[in-house]
Amino acid sequence: MGNSFGSLFRVTSFGESHGGAVGVIVDGCPSNIDIDLDAVQHELTRRRPGQSHITTPRKEPDQLEVLSGIFKGKTLGTPIAMMVRNQDANPKAYDHLKAVFRPSHADYTYQEKFGIRNWQGGGRSSARETIARVAAGAIAKQVLTQIAPIEILAYVIQIHQIRAHVDSDAVQAADIEANIVRCPDPAIAKEMITRIEVARKEGDSVGGVIACVCRGVPAGWGEPVFDKIKADLSKAMMSLPASMGIEMGSGFAGVEMTGKAHNDAFYMDDDGQVRTKTNFSGGTQGGITNGEPILFRTAFKPTATIFSTQDTVTEDKKNTTLAAKGRHDPCVLPRAVPIVEAMAALVLLDHALRHQARKGGS
Amino acid sequence: MGNSFGSLFRVTSFGESHGGAVGVIVDGCPSNIDIDLDAVQHELTRRRPGQSHITTPRKEPDQLEVLSGIFKGKTLGTPIAMMVRNQDANPKAYDHLKAVFRPSHADYTYQEKFGIRNWQGGGRSSARETIARVAAGAIAKQVLTQIAPIEILAYVIQIHQIRAHVDSDAVQAADIEANIVRCPDPAIAKEMITRIEVARKEGDSVGGVIACVCRGVPAGWGEPVFDKIKADLSKAMMSLPASMGIEMGSGFAGVEMTGKAHNDAFYMDDDGQVRTKTNFSGGTQGGITNGEPILFRTAFKPTATIFSTQDTVTEDKKNTTLAAKGRHDPCVLPRAVPIVEAMAALVLLDHALRHQARKGGS
Amino acid sequence: MGNSFGSLFRVTSFGESHGGAVGVIVDGCPSNIDIDLDAVQHELTRRRPGQSHITTPRKEPDQLEVLSGIFKGKTLGTPIAMMVRNQDANPKAYDHLKAVFRPSHADYTYQEKFGIRNWQGGGRSSARETIARVAAGAIAKQVLTQIAPIEILAYVIQIHQIRAHVDSDAVQAADIEANIVRCPDPAIAKEMITRIEVARKEGDSVGGVIACVCRGVPAGWGEPVFDKIKADLSKAMMSLPASMGIEMGSGFAGVEMTGKAHNDAFYMDDDGQVRTKTNFSGGTQGGITNGEPILFRTAFKPTATIFSTQDTVTEDKKNTTLAAKGRHDPCVLPRAVPIVEAMAALVLLDHALRHQARKGGS
Amino acid sequence: MGNSFGSLFRVTSFGESHGGAVGVIVDGCPSNIDIDLDAVQHELTRRRPGQSHITTPRKEPDQLEVLSGIFKGKTLGTPIAMMVRNQDANPKAYDHLKAVFRPSHADYTYQEKFGIRNWQGGGRSSARETIARVAAGAIAKQVLTQIAPIEILAYVIQIHQIRAHVDSDAVQAADIEANIVRCPDPAIAKEMITRIEVARKEGDSVGGVIACVCRGVPAGWGEPVFDKIKADLSKAMMSLPASMGIEMGSGFAGVEMTGKAHNDAFYMDDDGQVRTKTNFSGGTQGGITNGEPILFRTAFKPTATIFSTQDTVTEDKKNTTLAAKGRHDPCVLPRAVPIVEAMAALVLLDHALRHQARKGGS
Repeated sequence: MGNSFGSLFRVTSFGESHGGAVGVIVDGCPSNIDIDLDAVQHELTRRRPGQSHITTPRKEPDQLEVLSGIFKGKTLGTPIAMMVRNQDANPKAYDHLKAVFRPSHADYTYQEKFGIRNWQGGGRSSARETIARVAAGAIAKQVLTQIAPIEILAYVIQIHQIRAHVDSDAVQAADIEANIVRCPDPAIAKEMITRIEVARKEGDSVGGVIACVCRGVPAGWGEPVFDKIKADLSKAMMSLPASMGIEMGSGFAGVEMTGKAHNDAFYMDDDGQVRTKTNFSGGTQGGITNGEPILFRTAFKPTATIFSTQDTVTEDKKNTTLAAKGRHDPCVLPRAVPIVEAMAALVLLDHALRHQARKGGS
Repeated sequence: MGNSFGSLFRVTSFGESHGGAVGVIVDGCPSNIDIDLDAVQHELTRRRPGQSHITTPRKEPDQLEVLSGIFKGKTLGTPIAMMVRNQDANPKAYDHLKAVFRPSHADYTYQEKFGIRNWQGGGRSSARETIARVAAGAIAKQVLTQIAPIEILAYVIQIHQIRAHVDSDAVQAADIEANIVRCPDPAIAKEMITRIEVARKEGDSVGGVIACVCRGVPAGWGEPVFDKIKADLSKAMMSLPASMGIEMGSGFAGVEMTGKAHNDAFYMDDDGQVRTKTNFSGGTQGGITNGEPILFRTAFKPTATIFSTQDTVTEDKKNTTLAAKGRHDPCVLPRAVPIVEAMAALVLLDHALRHQARKGGS
Repeated sequence: MGNSFGSLFRVTSFGESHGGAVGVIVDGCPSNIDIDLDAVQHELTRRRPGQSHITTPRKEPDQLEVLSGIFKGKTLGTPIAMMVRNQDANPKAYDHLKAVFRPSHADYTYQEKFGIRNWQGGGRSSARETIARVAAGAIAKQVLTQIAPIEILAYVIQIHQIRAHVDSDAVQAADIEANIVRCPDPAIAKEMITRIEVARKEGDSVGGVIACVCRGVPAGWGEPVFDKIKADLSKAMMSLPASMGIEMGSGFAGVEMTGKAHNDAFYMDDDGQVRTKTNFSGGTQGGITNGEPILFRTAFKPTATIFSTQDTVTEDKKNTTLAAKGRHDPCVLPRAVPIVEAMAALVLLDHALRHQARKGGS
Repeated sequence: MGNSFGSLFRVTSFGESHGGAVGVIVDGCPSNIDIDLDAVQHELTRRRPGQSHITTPRKEPDQLEVLSGIFKGKTLGTPIAMMVRNQDANPKAYDHLKAVFRPSHADYTYQEKFGIRNWQGGGRSSARETIARVAAGAIAKQVLTQIAPIEILAYVIQIHQIRAHVDSDAVQAADIEANIVRCPDPAIAKEMITRIEVARKEGDSVGGVIACVCRGVPAGWGEPVFDKIKADLSKAMMSLPASMGIEMGSGFAGVEMTGKAHNDAFYMDDDGQVRTKTNFSGGTQGGITNGEPILFRTAFKPTATIFSTQDTVTEDKKNTTLAAKGRHDPCVLPRAVPIVEAMAALVLLDHALRHQARKGGS
C-alpha cells in the first residue's frame, strides 16, 4: 500500500534502486490526447543523476520505455505503463550496509516495518522511485495544457543559508534552467553552487528550499474539507524524500501579520475577472483555487549520506560506527526541481478531473 | 467528494454551519473496544465556541448524539455515526452576505465551483465542520491507547509575533489546559491573551503556530513513497481551515544545518531499544516511524473575519465594500488545539491498522 | 470498512436495526440540482415494512430527515446526510436470541468476525440498512434524469416456482405498482400473492427473482477491465441481503446458445443511431454501455426467519434448537424491488460521473 | 480508471493485446514471504494460448518477468511488478477491422467511450489482459497458504448443453488437469471436447459454466453491507471477459426451495467446530465466511469471434457485413479456469488482510 497517488488521474509506482526497473502505471488519463514522448524524456533527463558536477556521479541514462496506453502518439484512455531500467547498479558497493543502519536513512524503519529490506542502494527508499513521479507528471503537464494555459515552474530559492529573492510573477523556465542549481537569480546561483562544492569537498551535505508557482489554473478546482488543494499539494510535497516542511502563500511568515494586512481584497479587473489585490492566500481559499497563481515552498533537509564516521547500530542491535562510501548528491535540490513540478502537475490534473466529474454529464 | 479521510479508519463528514446538524460516520473502527462518550464530549467542549472571552461568543453547547455503532458501551465494528445539532444559528444575520464575497473567505471559490452556496455562516466552509473531526478523533485516541501507550499533545507556541519556547519532551496535558490560550508557558500565555484582546478591540485578528508531539508511537508505522506518515500528517493539518504551513522535526530551520549536524545518530539505550541521539527527523525516517516522538508545527493565518471596511466584489461582479458584522474568533488557535490533536489521532490510527493489515493474518 | 459504495457518487451508510437511527451520507452529488424530497420519501415508503399483508407487520413510518447538503431545494455539492429514526423497536422481543445463532442468518458470522454483536433485530445485518440505499438511490435517480432520459424499472418475475413472462421493452412503472407483489403480470401476480400467503400460514418462506431494465442509458458508460458496468451492477445486487445470483442479458440460459445465435448484430436505425438487432449482451459490451437497455435478473433466497423448530448452536458452542418468534417477511421480494432500482441508480450515476471526468475539463 | 482491483492487496493492470507488454503491479503484499516464481509461471502456462487443439493457435510463451518487489526469493513488502511481452502479434491481420465494429465485441463501445481505440487484436479489451490477473492471483494463492490451508479449485461443469455433475467436496486438482477441457468428470469431458471441436469446424463457438470451490477459508472474513464476500466475488467474476452470470451456493435453483428446506442448520462437529449440515448458503452468511466451503458458478457466453458473415456497421456509421479472419478460441472456458481461481484468490487475500487490519494492532 502507499504506492498510488491521486483519485482519478491515478499513478501507481514500482521499483527498487537496484531491482530490474523502476516505473509507473498512469490510470485515468483522458483519451485521444497527443503525447510528446521526447518531452517526457526531457523531464527524466532534468532529474537524472550525473547531470552536473554538483550531483551524484552515478551514471544512469534513465531511458524511458512505454509499454502500453499510447497508440500512434495518442492516449488510448487505457493505463499508460512506463519504465526505466536500472543500469549503473553496483550491488557489491553496498555489502558493508547489509547489517548496519545508516543514520537518518530509512534502513532501520524499513527493517522494523517489513522484517526484510533490499540494502542495495536503499532499495525502495532510494530517491530513484521519483523517476515514476517525473514520468507520470510529464504526462500530466501535457494533459493540463489541453485544459487551460497552465504553467508550473519550480526553482531553488535557498541553499543552506544562502537565499535568493525571486519574483514569482516574473520568473520564466529559461531563467531556471540557465544554471545547474536551478535558481533563477544568477548571482545567488553562483554562490549556491560554490556552497554545494564546499559541502562535497568536506564530505558533508546541504539542504534548501524550492519555490513553486502554478499559473493559469482556473478558479473552482479543489474539494472542500479534506481534499483541499493546499492539503493535496502538501501531501504531494511531503511525500518526497528529504522534504521537511511546506508552506502556502504567506506561510509561516504570514503568522506575523494581522488580518487587516493579510486579507486579499477582491476587485474586478479590466477583463471582467475577479482578482485579488494581494495573494497572501497563495491561490486558494477554502481549499479551492481562486484563479490567482498557486504559490508554495518546500524545505528539504541536507542529504543524509555524508562521508564522515557516524555513530549508529547494527541490525542485531549493537552500537557501531559507519563511514559511508560510494556516490551521493551533496545537495538534492537541483534534481528535486522537476520532481516538485511533477507532483504539482499530478495534484492539479487530478483535481481538474474531479472538478469535471462534478458537472455530472450535463 | 473530499469529505472522507483515512483508508482503514475512515471518517466521512457532513454538515453546514446553519443546516440541521454537523456530524460524522466513522467506518473501520476495531470492534469490542470500550468507548468513554464523556471523553468524546470533553473534546467537543474543548473545541466549542464561547468557551472563553477570547473566542467567538456564538453559544453552542455542541452536545454529542451517537446514532449507531456502539452497543452497551462497546464498539460493534459497524459504522459509528455521531452528530451535533446546530442551535445558535441566526440566518438573518447573514442576509448582507447573500450577494457579496468576503475577502480571504471561501464565498467566491465555492460559488465558482458549485454555482450555489449556503451563505449562512459560511455553510460547509465554516469551521463548524471540525466538530466531525474532533468527535472522530476522540474515538481514535481511545482506540490508539489500546494498541500502545500513545499520547498526543498539541499546544500553542506562537501568537502573532509572540513566541513561546516549550520542551516537547516535558510538556503535559495539564500545562496546556492551564490557560485559555492553551500555551504551556504561563508567562508567555498571558502576553498572548493580551495580544488577542487587543486584536479583538481593534476589530482585527491574529494567527499563530501550534506544535504537536505524539509520544509512544511504535517504530514501523507509515507506508513508503506516497503515504508516508509525514505526508499524511501534512495533508491532515493542511486540510484544516486557516492552516498555511506545516513542518516536521527541524523543518524550515533545518535547512540551515549541514548533514553532519542534522543526521540523527542511532544508539542502543539501556532497555535494548534503538534510539536516536537527536530528533531532527521528527520521529520518522523514509516516511515510517522510528519510535522517537513525532514532532510537527502548523501555521494558522489571522482569522479572515475582521470588523473594518474592506474592498471586495459582489456575486454579479461589481466592485463594492464590505464591513463585517456578527460574531467571530479574533484568533482561531486556542480552539484549534483539540482539532490538531484529533487529526493526528486519525492519521496515526489509520496507519496502525494499515500496519496491522500487513501482517497478513499470520 | 465496507460501508461505502461508489467512487465519485459515494454513499456511506450507518445504523443498526434497533440503534438510534439508520442513515446515509451521499458525497459527490453534483451541485445546483433540484431535489424533490417527496420523491425520496415515496421510495422509502415503497420499501417500508407493514405496507401490505404479505410483508412484515413491523410498523415503521420510515420518515426521512435531511441533515445537510440541500439548501432551498437544491443540492449544494456538499454531503447530503439523511436519516430515519428507528421507532417500532422492541429489544425485549430478541432476548431469546442473545446467546443462540439463527440458521442462515449472520449471527454466527458477525460473532466470529467482531467478537460482539447487537442481537436486537439483527443489528447491522438487518435489512433495515437498505433504507440508506433507497434514500441515496432516490437522489441518484433524480440526478440521472438531468443527464439523460433514464428510466430504471425493477419487478418481480418469479416467486418460488411461479414464473411470469414480462416484456422488458414494454413494462411500465404503473404495471409494477398495480399489485402488492410488484409483478407486472396481473394474473401471475395473484398466484404469487397466494403462494406467499401459504408460506406465511405454514410459518415458512419463499424466494424469487427480480428483473431490472435500465432504459435510456447513453453508450460509453463503464470502465474497462475491473469496473465494468456488469461487474459493478453484480457487486451492487450481490451486496443485498438474501441475494444469491445475478445474470446479465442472456445469462445462464445464453450458455446453451452458440456464438452465431448469440452475437448481437449491429445496424443503423432510422435516426442514425447504432443499434443491435438482439440484446443478448444486456446492454453492455466490454463492460461499457452500448445504448441498448441494460437487463439483469437477481435471485433472492427464501427468508431465513421461519417459524418452525430448527437445529442450531449456542454462543458457547453447544447444540440446541430454536423456534423463531416475532415479526418477519415471508418473502422479501416485494420490498426488494425499490432496493434493486436504488442500487442500479447508484451504479449508473457513479459511472456517469466517472465518464464525465474522463473528458478532462476540455 | 477501473484498472485496479482490491483495497489492501491491490493489483493494477496494464497492457494491450498488441502493445509492448501486459503486466501488473501488486501493492500491499505482506513482506518476507517466500515466492515460488515457477508456480507463477505455471499458472500463466495454464492460461496461455496454444496449449491444446481446442484453444486459439496464437503462439505466446507468456514468459514472466519480475521487475521489482522480490529480493532473494522473498517479498519485500514493496510493489511487485510483473510483465509479459507480447510476441506473436500480427497487427496487419487486423487491418480489416480498423473501421468496422465486430458484433458483441467491445469495438463500438470503446470507440464511443474514448473516441479512439487500438483495433489490433482488441487492444485493451483483449482477454490478454487476464495475464495480469493470473500472475497476481498466483502470488495471492501463495500468500493465502501462509495464513490458512486454503485451496481454490475451479473446473468446467457445463459446455453448451453438456452438463457434468461434480462433487465439490471431493474434487481434486489432478482431476481437473487430467484433460484439456478441465472438467473433472472424464466421460463428460470427452463429450465437451467433441462439442468444442464441432464448433470450431463450423466456424462457430460455444459457452459454458465454471464452478469454483474455496476450501479451508476461516470463519469471519468479509465485510458487512457493501463489501460482502459474495459481492466482491461477484464483481471479480463479472469483471471477466465474456462472463454473463454468477450464483453462490444454491443460486437461482435455490429460489425453488422454501425456507425450511433452504436454511443451513448449525451443529457442533467432533472437533468442537461450528458447522452447517447443508451448505446452500455457499460458505457465507451476512456476507461473512462461516468456515464452510465457498461455492459459486460463473456463466460464460459463446466466444464473440466466429467465422461466418455477420451484419454490422462501420466506424462512419454505415451498414456493412463482416467475416472474421484470424485466430480465436472456439470456447474460452478451458483457459478461463485458472483465471477464475486467480480472481477468487485476489478477493480472499484482500479480505484476509482487511480482517487482519480489524484487529487494530492489539
